[in-house]
Amino acid sequence: MVGFDGDDTLWHNESIFAATHERFRTLIERYEPGVDLDARLLATERRNIALFGYGVKGYALSLIETAIDCTDQRIGAADIATIVGWAKDMLAHPVELLDGVAETIERLAGGFRLALITKGDFFHQESKIARSGLADHFERIEIVAEKAPATYRSVLQRADVSPAAFLMVGNSLRSDVLPVLDIGGRAVHIPYHVTWEHERVADHDLDRRAYRCLGDIRDLPALLDG
Amino acid sequence: MVGFDGDDTLWHNESIFAATHERFRTLIERYEPGVDLDARLLATERRNIALFGYGVKGYALSLIETAIDCTDQRIGAADIATIVGWAKDMLAHPVELLDGVAETIERLAGGFRLALITKGDFFHQESKIARSGLADHFERIEIVAEKAPATYRSVLQRADVSPAAFLMVGNSLRSDVLPVLDIGGRAVHIPYHVTWEHERVADHDLDRRAYRCLGDIRDLPALLDG
Repeated sequence: MVGFDGDDTLWHNESIFAATHERFRTLIERYEPGVDLDARLLATERRNIALFGYGVKGYALSLIETAIDCTDQRIGAADIATIVGWAKDMLAHPVELLDGVAETIERLAGGFRLALITKGDFFHQESKIARSGLADHFERIEIVAEKAPATYRSVLQRADVSPAAFLMVGNSLRSDVLPVLDIGGRAVHIPYHVTWEHERVADHDLDRRAYRCLGDIRDLPALLDG
Repeated sequence: MVGFDGDDTLWHNESIFAATHERFRTLIERYEPGVDLDARLLATERRNIALFGYGVKGYALSLIETAIDCTDQRIGAADIATIVGWAKDMLAHPVELLDGVAETIERLAGGFRLALITKGDFFHQESKIARSGLADHFERIEIVAEKAPATYRSVLQRADVSPAAFLMVGNSLRSDVLPVLDIGGRAVHIPYHVTWEHERVADHDLDRRAYRCLGDIRDLPALLDG
């Protein structure tokens, strides 16, 4: 069985957050030129993640909280309404597949059992999966709250697949690669051009870990055949 | 198999929203005495539900949007920060089981296969289920985005249970009773003392529908034995 992450592996996601982040920076700079916005926002998100989880709505609430903090409560209600509007834009944003995804998934579906294992806001993920046009190629679709080793163990158990017969493909070392190696599976890392700070992994965590790294999902069939 | 809804069937939920709603009314009345807040908020929620889905984070964003609308953008940033704080309070709120739930679930677990079928924010639902102390009694736990007939059909298929051998217990006619009757299952309605306007069902939808209504979950074992 080959597992695929969704966000930033099959379709663009972080780039949508990054575009909103730029709009946010422009908005707050009008109140507080030169404020250390990235660090302040990341600190807010880290503080909130245990309550908010992953996804657009929690991100929007963290943006609003950071905006109020950073401007010493001077930000106007109209600008906060603008931030709420960004959240809606992000949720309604078309699902844009990464280059080569449609053809690769279609090709692999002929020879492997495929699973989509994605993390984040349930309602939004369901909507993105439906709009991706890929759903029919996956034997299993699992939307999980957190990608820990135990999560993968339970997904594989439900699919009746041993970790040794499982390979996970994703853009996040932290969520898609390391926990799968931990339970005895294999993994392919396909980096996305933007990585959310929260998903970064320190170099020392990667010691003696065996996984493959690909620059393009179109190289996956050859790797799996080899 | 007996299925149970979570929010307002096993643990209190709407009462937490109702308490926040009262705080919201007090806050907005300071700006706009006598404003038609309930109707304005409900209209915002209805407009947003296709994007936001169910749960505290989407509710908080709708509160913020309504607050800005109703005050013609006069609401101060500090008050919006207060609303964000309410969202955190709601998410961190202890899980309080309804009277009789713990003993009834424990008793039924001895004689029936039990499933928990709950709707809403995935991350928050997982956290509530974990904190409820009930998880071990359920053979299946399904967090779904929407409770439509097709949702129940697919849950039962995964559990290998026919609709005729399934009974659903919940507080919402719209989500827990009608869709289960639609697929040929049975249902027990246990009303909660507060019903979210969105979950209300028009009387004419209830014609010729056969389901049982109980005032107390503790009456469920006798109903199932009878």
